[in-house]
Amino acid sequence: MSDDTATYDLVITGCIALRDNAGTSPRFESNTTIAVTDGRIAYIGPDGDAPPAGTDVVEAAGLVAIPGLINCHTHAAMTLFRGIAEDVPVHSWFNEYVWPMEVNLTEEDVYLGTLLACAEMLSSGVTSFADHYFYMDAAARAVDESGIRANLGWAFFSSMGSQGLEQSADFAERLNGAAGGRITTSLAPHAPYTVNDADLTAAAGEAERIGVRVHIHAAENLAQTESSVSSRGITPIEILNRTGILDAGTIIAHGCGITEADIPILAEHRTSVGVAHCPKVYLKHALPPLTPIRALNAVGIPVGMGTDGVAGNNTLDILESMRLTAMTQKYVEEDATWLTTGHAINLATTQSAETIGLADDIGALEVGRRADIALIDMSGPHCQPVHDTAAALVYSARAGDVVTVVSDGAVVLKDRKLLTIDVAAIRSELSDRLDRLIDVTHGDQIQRYDP
Amino acid sequence: MSDDTATYDLVITGCIALRDNAGTSPRFESNTTIAVTDGRIAYIGPDGDAPPAGTDVVEAAGLVAIPGLINCHTHAAMTLFRGIAEDVPVHSWFNEYVWPMEVNLTEEDVYLGTLLACAEMLSSGVTSFADHYFYMDAAARAVDESGIRANLGWAFFSSMGSQGLEQSADFAERLNGAAGGRITTSLAPHAPYTVNDADLTAAAGEAERIGVRVHIHAAENLAQTESSVSSRGITPIEILNRTGILDAGTIIAHGCGITEADIPILAEHRTSVGVAHCPKVYLKHALPPLTPIRALNAVGIPVGMGTDGVAGNNTLDILESMRLTAMTQKYVEEDATWLTTGHAINLATTQSAETIGLADDIGALEVGRRADIALIDMSGPHCQPVHDTAAALVYSARAGDVVTVVSDGAVVLKDRKLLTIDVAAIRSELSDRLDRLIDVTHGDQIQRYDP
Repeated sequence: MSDDTATYDLVITGCIALRDNAGTSPRFESNTTIAVTDGRIAYIGPDGDAPPAGTDVVEAAGLVAIPGLINCHTHAAMTLFRGIAEDVPVHSWFNEYVWPMEVNLTEEDVYLGTLLACAEMLSSGVTSFADHYFYMDAAARAVDESGIRANLGWAFFSSMGSQGLEQSADFAERLNGAAGGRITTSLAPHAPYTVNDADLTAAAGEAERIGVRVHIHAAENLAQTESSVSSRGITPIEILNRTGILDAGTIIAHGCGITEADIPILAEHRTSVGVAHCPKVYLKHALPPLTPIRALNAVGIPVGMGTDGVAGNNTLDILESMRLTAMTQKYVEEDATWLTTGHAINLATTQSAETIGLADDIGALEVGRRADIALIDMSGPHCQPVHDTAAALVYSARAGDVVTVVSDGAVVLKDRKLLTIDVAAIRSELSDRLDRLIDVTHGDQIQRYDP
Repeated sequence: MSDDTATYDLVITGCIALRDNAGTSPRFESNTTIAVTDGRIAYIGPDGDAPPAGTDVVEAAGLVAIPGLINCHTHAAMTLFRGIAEDVPVHSWFNEYVWPMEVNLTEEDVYLGTLLACAEMLSSGVTSFADHYFYMDAAARAVDESGIRANLGWAFFSSMGSQGLEQSADFAERLNGAAGGRITTSLAPHAPYTVNDADLTAAAGEAERIGVRVHIHAAENLAQTESSVSSRGITPIEILNRTGILDAGTIIAHGCGITEADIPILAEHRTSVGVAHCPKVYLKHALPPLTPIRALNAVGIPVGMGTDGVAGNNTLDILESMRLTAMTQKYVEEDATWLTTGHAINLATTQSAETIGLADDIGALEVGRRADIALIDMSGPHCQPVHDTAAALVYSARAGDVVTVVSDGAVVLKDRKLLTIDVAAIRSELSDRLDRLIDVTHGDQIQRYDP
């Protein structure tokens, strides 16, 4: 320890710590101690003297320590619909499955679905997520109880009338800073094709007034961009620009349909705009191309890792998103030297923290940052031998290799056991709800997909 | 039980069993008992009376039972090189990393590397693999000890002289049927670009004489096919046809460069030829297109799931290969309705068994088949709730969810603990070997990659 008299709340010893992920050449250091006070990292450096008596200690010999992973775009409560809409085109996915089923949701459903999502994420090393859904007070309750960090936005369509925007703004204002600061908020208009320009402009204004970002789906695929250009003469990104959404700061979900001409527009807002990339669902929905990460990163626009909702993505696994991003970007760019393991780690840490507007607080194991830490066991046969820790992290390690997780300084997963959530109780609570949740005989849907 | 007096060697009770995977509409049945005698499935059906006293019983309430997974193409001992050649083009991967490093291999290295591979595979539900490597007596020893099933082929290049082919044929003849029948063999010429037509013809003759197949890399990517057409006027698949390799029966590794004109040639041999598909490494090597699975399956040519060697693929995880196959095939065909979850399961079971020539013995949970069974726990938050077991298996379950594995009637993994392999001992044995294994200062390589 640098200070023999210091008493830390928590000390992690003996780990192989990721010490530099700001660029694309990560550095891992063995025999590292991380000490935590008041929810922040207070020391990180070589193992030294034994920690002061009375300190909570996690012995992490040989475990790889990384910043808690960040899910930059999801709809957490959609765990309720996992696996319910497979092998269907995107129009059918929305209009025949998901949007009719979402009519059935109650506030308590959203609480349980979000809590299950928090269990999945914390178990797999994800300590922060950006959520875009409904009944967000229930989601906030799940976040508060589980110990995870989240940026929460209450989704709305213009079809809801003025009440949608008002509810989204009211929630963003009330909950920003809740759960001891673990909750931040966003305004959450659904998309430029479901929210009109007046409401987008108003949402941007509300976001600036409250001091939060806007979390929105935009240019989700190229067909949407083409439809926008054909009907209005401008791209979805240009709509975000004209309505002030980009000025407010934006989490852009997907962006597979971002055009070359959109890049300079986004580059002007690079310090407050990021793109959340969810590759698994893009492959499953079978709509090339993928998000132009090379072009975005070339001009400094951050790209974060996301999963989208589980009804499409089936998991909330950011290690999987990172791995798929590296592999698919190589493939579509036809360049095996592009999107290196180090670059993938940078996307999943630094750039993800930037994307959700927490660049100074999370995404690195540095003194002063919030203590969000995942400890990964690479002793399993599927990771051995470890010639290259970065490669093992990106291409071999699985979510199940995460053994211990610290969120905001508190141990929330210990030896693969969740300390804050009872998954068996959630399973039991859900079992009677599932038939009702997936019933579509009512013929209603929350919105029509026709971008 | 159907027969109250029967005594089975092993009884698995209470599982959710995959009962039909011959087509693309799999059926799972809850509350199923599977009973095993003499290494084969002797009963499968509804849970009934308690099993006879003295029987070994696995209580599998709520676990999903699937046929042991099949890795149709790998180089198992390349676990030794995991993560050592990332982010490099394929020429460099071969000529600067892998083929120089393989000069360093000893027989004991191959034994340890293969044993580690067996540990990884059994832990993840893979009970059979088709291997294509060197020092195959050492590989056979690892297979024998671990309890896994394997089809083993001793690789050769024409640059080895006549000794290469002779060694491959001698091994195939000596070891076919070894380890109580768990070992089958193949002739293993490396590829049409490293083995000349005379040697291919001779290999086909030896395979037919011994009664085994030929396992060979062919049309690995489109550039290889184009090079073959440009230099010789025929495709790699046409070379296999003209040299009698297809008549002998063939495991074709990769086939991303299979052309439309190749399809009818392969279709003529559909009962004895299969294509091993390893999507992770194709993405990483960044060489579109992918194997034309739609065209192959349309005319009844089986496609099996593989991983290739770990120096490229980083894992030996067939659940991952299956998942990536489903996702990437949807994407490249731009059709979300193609390669359904049921189809993916069919590829990973029935078609994989066909690909490695064991269509009657493995790949289904049916009376009379060898008892290769993986039990998967879907109670984790990343699988819950399970609206659709097939979707959960393809898109949510992870290799680490495999809890118990039966291979050839013997329990080899129990509650996630390997009973036949000591991974810690292998790790320790390997640690002193790694520097020597990756040393390329000798300037030699086993072969030059210039297809």
